[in-house]
Amino acid sequence: MTDDKKIIAFVVYPGMTPLDMVGPLTVLDGMASTAQEYRTVVVGETKDPVVTDNPLKLVATHTYDEVPSPYALLVPGGAAPTLKALADEKLIGYLRKAGESAELVTSVCTGSLLLGQAGLLEGRRAATHWMFREFLRAFGAEPVAERWVEDGNVITAAGVSAGIDLALHLVERLVGAEIARTIQFVIEYDPEPPLGPLDWSKRPYGDLKPLLEHTLNEALADEPALRDRLLAHTGK
Amino acid sequence: MTDDKKIIAFVVYPGMTPLDMVGPLTVLDGMASTAQEYRTVVVGETKDPVVTDNPLKLVATHTYDEVPSPYALLVPGGAAPTLKALADEKLIGYLRKAGESAELVTSVCTGSLLLGQAGLLEGRRAATHWMFREFLRAFGAEPVAERWVEDGNVITAAGVSAGIDLALHLVERLVGAEIARTIQFVIEYDPEPPLGPLDWSKRPYGDLKPLLEHTLNEALADEPALRDRLLAHTGK
Repeated sequence: MTDDKKIIAFVVYPGMTPLDMVGPLTVLDGMASTAQEYRTVVVGETKDPVVTDNPLKLVATHTYDEVPSPYALLVPGGAAPTLKALADEKLIGYLRKAGESAELVTSVCTGSLLLGQAGLLEGRRAATHWMFREFLRAFGAEPVAERWVEDGNVITAAGVSAGIDLALHLVERLVGAEIARTIQFVIEYDPEPPLGPLDWSKRPYGDLKPLLEHTLNEALADEPALRDRLLAHTGK
Repeated sequence: MTDDKKIIAFVVYPGMTPLDMVGPLTVLDGMASTAQEYRTVVVGETKDPVVTDNPLKLVATHTYDEVPSPYALLVPGGAAPTLKALADEKLIGYLRKAGESAELVTSVCTGSLLLGQAGLLEGRRAATHWMFREFLRAFGAEPVAERWVEDGNVITAAGVSAGIDLALHLVERLVGAEIARTIQFVIEYDPEPPLGPLDWSKRPYGDLKPLLEHTLNEALADEPALRDRLLAHTGK
């Protein structure tokens, strides 16, 4: 891409969780419509429809090659397909290259594991989906149980819906609170979870170890070295 | 569709706001993976990629004809393109027909205006995006300033992000609080808006009348009768 805007690239890949990307894209595209030095794009290996972890398919606007040096990068997560994507050399290669030159490197949910695999989290504090948090250690990152974590130019969010909070924070950081507040009104982001805030004493799945082991074995059957590296961090 | 599952149909149309649909789809597809009598589908006029109000394009799984009688319907909203869609006879015809037989008719944001145009809100209490609330009166509905409003089998949500709350409520209504809570954990929905809750004293755009008139004139230039019907409700 040759335009002189600051490009915010949202990455898509097979099996990802769409909400991880669509929440922040909505917020940051709202910013770009006001702060016109920014532009959002959706980047994939191809421009063919990408399957996700629900029936919806997404279509990228650009290929990796077309957006080699975005200003900012946002990587969404998912469950087993995201673990599988840790072995996707084209994706990881793109993240490594784009991430090294980007001013801002961000992720939602297990997108941070992909950043880790691309070598971008070494020695950093990072967030991810609560179920996968310990896996961050496999990439030299320090897991943090926060909604989002800012460590220099790397900003990682917790699971799925946390991407909306992350993105509003990014807007505030990039262009200030006034525009962030306007976007919050435009998306009417005044959450009222019907069952109230998360009560961690009611956390489902109990001991995560068997579930994580099953997921890893399923997702990374063809990648035993990577699987074993992550298996070392499935918890007590 | 001939399978015997309860089909939850998420409608897509050009220019819509993806988050309106992707939030609830994530939640309700999570429900369908546990409560397997349900199935989510994405329904559009065609299965070609649909442009949205941001760079992302979405791809439906089914056409209107393939899902004539869903168990539940969810209609997302948007800004000017959604007003334009009020004159989309194929979309409105589908909503009218599917909506009449559906057990649950739901919308997010200005999706409720489309339900209204399809004749499904007559005499009902309904929600929509705060900026467009008075327009509900043009369809015989009573606007309500709540996160979501349940009036019989018609459940309408406020703007954009309110679809997540709506969907968690639907899960609770359909299959109970335990599954709803599990999904809330899976999407880690424990919002922390960086600037806190919406403070309506800081509402942007001031008097909405000029903005709404401009939007209506732009979106419905070719539909003067419909435009004038809505213009009568742009506020004082």
